[in-house]
Amino acid sequence: MFILESIVTTYNSDGTTHAAPLGVWADDAAHPVLAPFKPSRTLDNLVREKIAVINCTDDVRVFAGCVLRRHTPPLCPSDRLPVERLAGSLSHREVEVTGIEDDKLRPRLHCKVIHEQTHAPFRGFNRAQAAVVELAILVSRLDRLAPEKVRAEIEYLSIAVEKTASDVEREAWSWLMAKVAQHPRHQQHQAR
Amino acid sequence: MFILESIVTTYNSDGTTHAAPLGVWADDAAHPVLAPFKPSRTLDNLVREKIAVINCTDDVRVFAGCVLRRHTPPLCPSDRLPVERLAGSLSHREVEVTGIEDDKLRPRLHCKVIHEQTHAPFRGFNRAQAAVVELAILVSRLDRLAPEKVRAEIEYLSIAVEKTASDVEREAWSWLMAKVAQHPRHQQHQAR
Repeated sequence: MFILESIVTTYNSDGTTHAAPLGVWADDAAHPVLAPFKPSRTLDNLVREKIAVINCTDDVRVFAGCVLRRHTPPLCPSDRLPVERLAGSLSHREVEVTGIEDDKLRPRLHCKVIHEQTHAPFRGFNRAQAAVVELAILVSRLDRLAPEKVRAEIEYLSIAVEKTASDVEREAWSWLMAKVAQHPRHQQHQAR
Repeated sequence: MFILESIVTTYNSDGTTHAAPLGVWADDAAHPVLAPFKPSRTLDNLVREKIAVINCTDDVRVFAGCVLRRHTPPLCPSDRLPVERLAGSLSHREVEVTGIEDDKLRPRLHCKVIHEQTHAPFRGFNRAQAAVVELAILVSRLDRLAPEKVRAEIEYLSIAVEKTASDVEREAWSWLMAKVAQHPRHQQHQAR
């Protein structure tokens, strides 16, 4: 299963936009599958509105900000669908839901890409960006993970941040680390 | 220091093309700095010809293939400079060397981007691609790293590959793992 970490924007019932990080199953690029875990605002919106934007950004502050519910990233209108998209993405794909496989844990929403646009070039892999994405995933699971495991992984990931980050990645990293430090289960294990 | 992992193509003195993975210092996008360690074919070519292409690909087989000197990736002519570029990149930048700071270990080649082109969209972070890049870096340092460290990092990285890879990432991973398994210092520690 080829999974691409993206920011999915959907339309809330009150007309506002919901932005959430989601792994997109992308074995077939023209027919991505979204599989959010229940319960999920993105899932509710997808089932009700049947449209979404898959935003591909390399600004890891957006991932960190969404995981921490810190703020909504800057948005702008999409080209074809009435769902806003991220203003700062490298590319975006506007998709329609064509089929829903329900599941107790993780329904699958089969989609069709109806429009794709590239906004800026991919300029190469950055190890710190990858490390921030891994830390964001860790932070979203702090309630379930052992403190020793979290601490060991953070120690490993921090090397790439120290060596290869710009201010953008360092800022996202610091937001996520503040969350770890505040978590009752993990705070003592991080203090050094 | 913001470092982007790219494939740099340069022109050999015999007229063939040399492709090598290199971390590009990219704090100033218009003026990237290349800093290959001595000795390096890329360095010799840059000093002699003063031109290069920075190729940004998400095909991690190219990184693995270059590290293992397995094969030259598919190439094609560039737009402005007489240096070939990767045929399959998401974007490329043609650069001229504008200044050289020599150093015993790691000279810095200051460059100017004279042309940039985007070929295909960035479709999101893939955790397996990041894991393959990390393994490629480990493999390039096998002579210097402790077997226990290599084994522990591979165990960690393999989780992302199992969960999020397509056939492309799995193939690159398997090439690199074969190299680890053949290395006198590491082969016994990997066998399980």
